[in-house]
Amino acid sequence: MSQSPVLIAGQWRTAKAGSTFHAANPATGEKLAAEFPISTWADCEAALNAAAAAAAILRTTPPEQIARFLTRFAERIEARKVELVETAHSETALPKAPRLGEVELPRTTNQLRQAAAAALDGSWAMPVIDAKLNIRSMLAPLGPVLVFGPNNFPFAYNGVAGGDFAAAIAAGNPVIAKAHPCHPATTRLLAEEAFTAIGETGLPPATVQMIYHVTPEDGLRLVADKRLGAVGFTGSRAAGLKLKAAADAVGKPIYLELSSLNPVVILPGALAERGEKIAEEFAGSCLMANGQFCTSPGLTILFAGADVEKFIARVKGKLESATPTSLLSSSVANNLAASVKILQAAGAEIVTGGSALGGNCFANTLLRVSGEKFLASPERLQTEAFGNASLAVIVRDAEQALEVLACLEGNLTGSIYSDTQGSEDVLYEKIAWVLCARVGRLLNDKMPTGVAVSPAMNHGGPFPATGHPGFTAVGIPASLRRFAMLQCFDNVRPHRLPPILRDKN
Amino acid sequence: MSQSPVLIAGQWRTAKAGSTFHAANPATGEKLAAEFPISTWADCEAALNAAAAAAAILRTTPPEQIARFLTRFAERIEARKVELVETAHSETALPKAPRLGEVELPRTTNQLRQAAAAALDGSWAMPVIDAKLNIRSMLAPLGPVLVFGPNNFPFAYNGVAGGDFAAAIAAGNPVIAKAHPCHPATTRLLAEEAFTAIGETGLPPATVQMIYHVTPEDGLRLVADKRLGAVGFTGSRAAGLKLKAAADAVGKPIYLELSSLNPVVILPGALAERGEKIAEEFAGSCLMANGQFCTSPGLTILFAGADVEKFIARVKGKLESATPTSLLSSSVANNLAASVKILQAAGAEIVTGGSALGGNCFANTLLRVSGEKFLASPERLQTEAFGNASLAVIVRDAEQALEVLACLEGNLTGSIYSDTQGSEDVLYEKIAWVLCARVGRLLNDKMPTGVAVSPAMNHGGPFPATGHPGFTAVGIPASLRRFAMLQCFDNVRPHRLPPILRDKN
Repeated sequence: MSQSPVLIAGQWRTAKAGSTFHAANPATGEKLAAEFPISTWADCEAALNAAAAAAAILRTTPPEQIARFLTRFAERIEARKVELVETAHSETALPKAPRLGEVELPRTTNQLRQAAAAALDGSWAMPVIDAKLNIRSMLAPLGPVLVFGPNNFPFAYNGVAGGDFAAAIAAGNPVIAKAHPCHPATTRLLAEEAFTAIGETGLPPATVQMIYHVTPEDGLRLVADKRLGAVGFTGSRAAGLKLKAAADAVGKPIYLELSSLNPVVILPGALAERGEKIAEEFAGSCLMANGQFCTSPGLTILFAGADVEKFIARVKGKLESATPTSLLSSSVANNLAASVKILQAAGAEIVTGGSALGGNCFANTLLRVSGEKFLASPERLQTEAFGNASLAVIVRDAEQALEVLACLEGNLTGSIYSDTQGSEDVLYEKIAWVLCARVGRLLNDKMPTGVAVSPAMNHGGPFPATGHPGFTAVGIPASLRRFAMLQCFDNVRPHRLPPILRDKN
Repeated sequence: MSQSPVLIAGQWRTAKAGSTFHAANPATGEKLAAEFPISTWADCEAALNAAAAAAAILRTTPPEQIARFLTRFAERIEARKVELVETAHSETALPKAPRLGEVELPRTTNQLRQAAAAALDGSWAMPVIDAKLNIRSMLAPLGPVLVFGPNNFPFAYNGVAGGDFAAAIAAGNPVIAKAHPCHPATTRLLAEEAFTAIGETGLPPATVQMIYHVTPEDGLRLVADKRLGAVGFTGSRAAGLKLKAAADAVGKPIYLELSSLNPVVILPGALAERGEKIAEEFAGSCLMANGQFCTSPGLTILFAGADVEKFIARVKGKLESATPTSLLSSSVANNLAASVKILQAAGAEIVTGGSALGGNCFANTLLRVSGEKFLASPERLQTEAFGNASLAVIVRDAEQALEVLACLEGNLTGSIYSDTQGSEDVLYEKIAWVLCARVGRLLNDKMPTGVAVSPAMNHGGPFPATGHPGFTAVGIPASLRRFAMLQCFDNVRPHRLPPILRDKN
């Protein structure tokens, strides 16, 4: 089979590749048929130049045209749904229904349509007009955005169709997408639809470009390149921090979404009142997508006592009665096994699971550790076990709970369950204050999985969950503001102003 | 004379100092009488702990109370104006009038009052309420802010009274101010008034803390400390980039305002039409505060021809007829002399000035270089000569002007002068596009000095002028958003929500 072409400078063409790779069947680890290029710097160079030229045109492209592209792209994705779902399933093992076809694909097109609406509306740019002093400012496009998509959402976070893509385009920037090597064929299909939609709506052809893979060195070189305005990355902490260092060194905005444990604190009153219901919610949340959500509850804080033992027994039962399916890749399965080992070595005990099964499956796993032990190795016990494993920390009392919380790194979310009668409100306040400073989203009586595409959503949080606590990757229009620079026009002649800053506004 | 006390944890107390320093008379270099401590880590540690405790209280302090503090502080500064102006003059050599007393002090109290109004108003926090999904978000305080003030604005950018201070406090964060060692006595007076105003308005005593100086190692350790929410720094590129690296490594938001050349492009038609007027504006802008503004025009692009020679001769005359005064410090004077040497070594020729005079004065200086030579050494010829020196780049034609502009680093401002009849609009568009991507504020027919405290102002720009192109250090309420984290409340019970996110809003 011939090598799949890359999309560079408005053309589907053979990559200037140094080598090639294949995606794998997640269940069997066998290579899938299609061969994909690992681009050399020559491809990156060509893409950067084409993106810079496209940025110059997009800067004055009417928002209506950008919105038409986003909408048309959404329609084209819907029209190719069957093939997209089939291909994504073959590359990720995620269920075709409801997950890929009924949940993730509609979420993706919904995001594209919301981004279109935000581009049209224009208020995302926060225009400010000081007519008296004739000073005006707005958020403006900042140039080509490089988007690295993650392994766990082949559609909704895909570099060429997902949230970062939609936000960057809606803000008026061209995108260079780097496919995730676990689902290159899915990414190719999406890029085909994006490119056709570009042709249909007359945007500069290099508004969207896509390469499948680069060497780690070229990845670092790319993010530091002068022609690039910003970077969006969703993925592992190890890779993300390397890219962050390269971007930081040249002052390039990089928006990261890295690992997160999403702590859940269950206060004693809640457990006494509705332990069974919470056990069900908790097990369901842990197992959602095999635990491969960025917001999967990886760490739960429980207050020692009989109710906790009952709760743990219930969760154990639920985890054991559910059948795990293949993880996204053998690499995810191997990392999960290694992380569980690290947690055990640091003092956590297996309640259930803990071992690899065949076909890149891993037994649904719950671990437990005491507050004392957690406080003795807080770093190792915050090792993310990405997949269907979760750690319960059993604290002695409220004081120890607060000590544990104070050790936590930055996370995307933090949940607190408390009794419905309000008798735990004083304790809630203390816990919420410590937790709040460490998470981007605070939940009450609710598990963290599920990230609604709401204008009020924050899918972000303090480092190392992300690179900056002021921005969100989900939630339109806020997510657009990442891919913009603040631009001020001081005494600029009226006809030279961007339309949104003219006096009639 | 006894060592001046530091303000830590609600007390004026003797520093735990490793050594001491004196400020100097800028004109003579002689030590001023007052002795100031260089704090050891013990002081930093105490300040960090006190700030963290204050942050927990400030989080739920009503905005009205924060606003009262800012307003009361402004009043107290005004009441102590004579002593403040006298002290600042003795430490900086800046003129008492109009500069310190009639311009900078009122600007400072105006900023404090605008920040008070923004805190009261609350819209800076961009609250978003999705009542249907019960998801709500806002920008929330992110914890203690460490503010490093610069040498060139003893009031308006002072760590304990200036723009970063006002923004951080108004956003609900305590501030640890690091005085600039050139004006510690001024900073002490301001801190005294701030602390008294805190007592009068009942804020937590450690809402404002102030130390005079730390070792470079402790400075790096401070910015990376977990108890700190963010850092504001205005100063030299060398120091700022070191702090940035330390903050970036731990994912701490750091807002920098570093060097900037503030390029001015004067198109031929403008020069032909009103060369004399522009020469006057240009010389005036260059000499404002002895060229010691962050927005001083350090690099001007002119199109070769007879008009340019006339323009340069006019500017030369104006610079020679103005008497330079003492620079802010001997260090500023030495750096200026060294920078002018670097520019000369890279091919720039002295038109006038170029040499140090007595009393930390430097001759008003204009240098010139051809476009060819600039393009041969673009990095060295972008060396900032902070003070009363400026470089004219004489380009051959529009094409070369665009090449020169494409080499420019990020700057705070960029100005374009063009003829008033509009005959240069096509050229303007080309130049503006290249310039726009490199500056935070684009001006037409106006010199960059003067940064109005307007809600539409952007005192920011791409790296290395600042650390992130999306934020401004001046302009309220936007400047508050730097010192905040995005916080989302998902299914949080109504009575636990911050007031601004409750349903009645």
